[in-house]
Amino acid sequence: MSLTGKQLINGAWKSDAEDGAFAALNPATNEKLPTEFQNANLDEVNEAVAAADAAFPIFSTLTAEERASFLDEIASQMEAAADVIVERGMAETGLPEMRLRGELGRTTGQLRQFSNVLRRGDWKRAVIDTAIPDRQPVPKPDIRLTQIALGPVVVFAASNFPLAFSTAGGDTASALAAGCPVIVKAHSAHPGTSELVAKCIKKAIEKSGVPAGTFGLIHGPGQTVGAALVQHQDIKAGGFTGSVGGGRALFNLASQRPEPIPFFGELGSTNPVFLLDKALNEKAEGIAEAFVGAMVLGAGQFCTNPGILVVKDGKDTDAFLGKAAEGIAAQQAQCMLTPGISSSFNDGNKKRQASNGVSVKAFGPETDGNNAQPVLMVVSASDYLADEELQEEIFGPSTLAIVCGSDEEMLQIAASFHGHLTSSIFAESGDLVMSQRLSAVIQNKVGRLIFNGYGTGVEVCAGMSHGGPYPSSTNVQSTSVGERAIDRFVRPLCYQNTPQELLPLELKDENPLGIPRLVNGAWTTDPVSA
Amino acid sequence: MSLTGKQLINGAWKSDAEDGAFAALNPATNEKLPTEFQNANLDEVNEAVAAADAAFPIFSTLTAEERASFLDEIASQMEAAADVIVERGMAETGLPEMRLRGELGRTTGQLRQFSNVLRRGDWKRAVIDTAIPDRQPVPKPDIRLTQIALGPVVVFAASNFPLAFSTAGGDTASALAAGCPVIVKAHSAHPGTSELVAKCIKKAIEKSGVPAGTFGLIHGPGQTVGAALVQHQDIKAGGFTGSVGGGRALFNLASQRPEPIPFFGELGSTNPVFLLDKALNEKAEGIAEAFVGAMVLGAGQFCTNPGILVVKDGKDTDAFLGKAAEGIAAQQAQCMLTPGISSSFNDGNKKRQASNGVSVKAFGPETDGNNAQPVLMVVSASDYLADEELQEEIFGPSTLAIVCGSDEEMLQIAASFHGHLTSSIFAESGDLVMSQRLSAVIQNKVGRLIFNGYGTGVEVCAGMSHGGPYPSSTNVQSTSVGERAIDRFVRPLCYQNTPQELLPLELKDENPLGIPRLVNGAWTTDPVSA
Repeated sequence: MSLTGKQLINGAWKSDAEDGAFAALNPATNEKLPTEFQNANLDEVNEAVAAADAAFPIFSTLTAEERASFLDEIASQMEAAADVIVERGMAETGLPEMRLRGELGRTTGQLRQFSNVLRRGDWKRAVIDTAIPDRQPVPKPDIRLTQIALGPVVVFAASNFPLAFSTAGGDTASALAAGCPVIVKAHSAHPGTSELVAKCIKKAIEKSGVPAGTFGLIHGPGQTVGAALVQHQDIKAGGFTGSVGGGRALFNLASQRPEPIPFFGELGSTNPVFLLDKALNEKAEGIAEAFVGAMVLGAGQFCTNPGILVVKDGKDTDAFLGKAAEGIAAQQAQCMLTPGISSSFNDGNKKRQASNGVSVKAFGPETDGNNAQPVLMVVSASDYLADEELQEEIFGPSTLAIVCGSDEEMLQIAASFHGHLTSSIFAESGDLVMSQRLSAVIQNKVGRLIFNGYGTGVEVCAGMSHGGPYPSSTNVQSTSVGERAIDRFVRPLCYQNTPQELLPLELKDENPLGIPRLVNGAWTTDPVSA
Repeated sequence: MSLTGKQLINGAWKSDAEDGAFAALNPATNEKLPTEFQNANLDEVNEAVAAADAAFPIFSTLTAEERASFLDEIASQMEAAADVIVERGMAETGLPEMRLRGELGRTTGQLRQFSNVLRRGDWKRAVIDTAIPDRQPVPKPDIRLTQIALGPVVVFAASNFPLAFSTAGGDTASALAAGCPVIVKAHSAHPGTSELVAKCIKKAIEKSGVPAGTFGLIHGPGQTVGAALVQHQDIKAGGFTGSVGGGRALFNLASQRPEPIPFFGELGSTNPVFLLDKALNEKAEGIAEAFVGAMVLGAGQFCTNPGILVVKDGKDTDAFLGKAAEGIAAQQAQCMLTPGISSSFNDGNKKRQASNGVSVKAFGPETDGNNAQPVLMVVSASDYLADEELQEEIFGPSTLAIVCGSDEEMLQIAASFHGHLTSSIFAESGDLVMSQRLSAVIQNKVGRLIFNGYGTGVEVCAGMSHGGPYPSSTNVQSTSVGERAIDRFVRPLCYQNTPQELLPLELKDENPLGIPRLVNGAWTTDPVSA
């Protein structure tokens, strides 16, 4: 597969090549990679949206099986192109081969997960309330409820997951499953990987016979091209994974449109980890080892990386911190995704080190270039509470341990947090009461509450939630991972007294899809009897 | 029940009486009604929110049965106070007794509907994915998903439904059901009705033993007191029914907060009605009679009032319009809700009459005071398409008939619409093809699609959706009527590897609530086996 460096618009690679171009950088060498990528202009943005809008009525009314087969075909095409995708991905991101092969598997797994959701059919949340023509004082009409696709969607690719949260990642997979055409704004750090994956989607479109405008890929700056996409009147929702600054700016544009649209941004999280007394007393070493693994995984560039530890002063905590420090010192250098991320990481750590009451407990080995030097810092609860900036995320392998004097102080720290994707509680049987008190506080701050583990493995399953109160998400009611992610791209539509021939399959009396439906207040897969 | 004219804060009626006061007006006489109502100040707003925030952890973790009993008790208290509520309601709104008795029944019905939802338990959307400890390359954790309450909520009462969309209306009922404490910003047009209903809620709080801060009532201007409530950091969502101007202003404030919150505003809709050939040919008279009834119901002050008719030029349409004109001319005067609504109605009609190509087909009898004179105007499709302002809602009994030259022009009109709550298609068997073409376009513009009926009866049931694309709602993914309204006030929370004793009831292995759950990909009410 060769690269064109162009936009994918309505099934064709095109660009007028008059709006500037950029090359991808290899972060391990700081050298430019082959192929120049053209920035899209406003005409190209409009053309891609018009194609998506034209595709919408056809794509959104395909049967569940037709869209499921299309998603499966994208997954198969990506598997067939795995070697070339992984090779370019390694060059563009500095991530190791095994990680990218795993991420490709995760990505195809997500696509097939949504095929499964489509085939199971319960995402329609079908409800049927049959008519009561002789009800007094007025007849009860026949009322039926389903969910339909919102319309064309823009997805912003993430820097830290060039596959699983990018071109054919979770946002795209769930939007396509819902019936929404997707335009991906490629991330400038991995444009080649994006184009290779887009080629797989293009092949799947051609093979499945879905409209060419169902998927588009656009390159260019977020401030211009990204903003134009979010503000286009025919774009009906947005998905984003990235920084608080960039994501909030796009959320603001989405909310300020004449017709506001839902914008699902997954922004920032430091994923506080609470270590309770008995757990530390019984298992400090194991918890410390697992902590270091989670902290440095992927050079700490996971949304769910443990950026805050909350512990109580004492010898078990000393043992834990000592063991963690040993582990950190023994790490090997890992390259970060971009020079910008690397310098932000270094700047953030310098600033934190200079904050009142903060001391460094452990550094990893010294590094150069775009490699990250892991660091564990320590601060007292009172100094932490006095400095709001200490709650800000430092993206990368940097963790702050907050040392409390008492359970009450630990609860006060928990209450002080803004929103996070996850929080972990390490607890053994003797910690039950404190676990209960702590969960009661922290459950209102997070999307996922974990016991005796770290948040870095985000299981792709029906029960996952990857979101939470702001700034972990711009929409506290949504998840960007797991089957429920499809909810972001649908809305309720009610049919009243509608003839059978005009009802969608999921609402027809005979229940041709065989799905669970709430019929007159009871869940059943039975047909509705006349 | 006497009126205090004060705020209900943390279970007590209080006001410092230093921020101005206002009296309610009887719109039938333009005379002030007894009792001065005090405007709240910022301290009182803060006190009410603090009480709601303190109530939240207790109220949100009551069992479903405990919250259901509380909602039932509010309904019983309202029934016991029905006479006094209806009497004050009539004086404050000009609505007739039968309408308000019906609305009170609808309101208690909504409260009991949500008790039923709580007892059925499926609103938790419980999912369980059990662990696979020996999965390669990494163990699969135990993942469980539920929905929890967002936190304290502000509800803005509507002018046009002083009971069903106000103090204990659908927003309040669904938020309380979800576990969210509620602060109602009373509508200045019916503050006494609001206080009387708030007294019923207060009694229910005392009888049920839920925290006093679970419900508050606040009087004062939307621009100051309303804005302060929406912007308060401890308020986590908002509900609103009213004008596009007011609702959009509050939505903007909610979106611009440091932590944006979901804001569910139901704003404006003209509910286009399409009359197809065969239907008009076979049933013009009946459709016209029902149209006039829907148009003038409650002086046209329903969100779902038919404000636009789309018809095709021809003798059947002439027959329909002639019959409708007769019906309109025979109407009796009906008082509008407020002098402001009455003068906006008159101004809107005058402006429309002066628009290019618009002619009046029928007036109701001349009126005076705050009474509404129904009016049916006619315009050609091309003149309609040339003037965007003709799409704006005139709140009251005013309908614009758009006359098309062809099916294609009718489809073009449908495609030109922004969002509406409902659309109706009148069709008989010979209209099937056009019905299909039309529904494919109009379903993307509305929350409810109705056949052979008008939208004015909003059935309160599981399958209802009352919302739709902007401006009918600020949140296209929500409904403010029907069981699904509870979704607005909850969010997903995921538990990973959580000990049984720390899981909520709906996620415990044994399924003590007996609710349907998605366990490892299949819906079941069975317990999870170890």
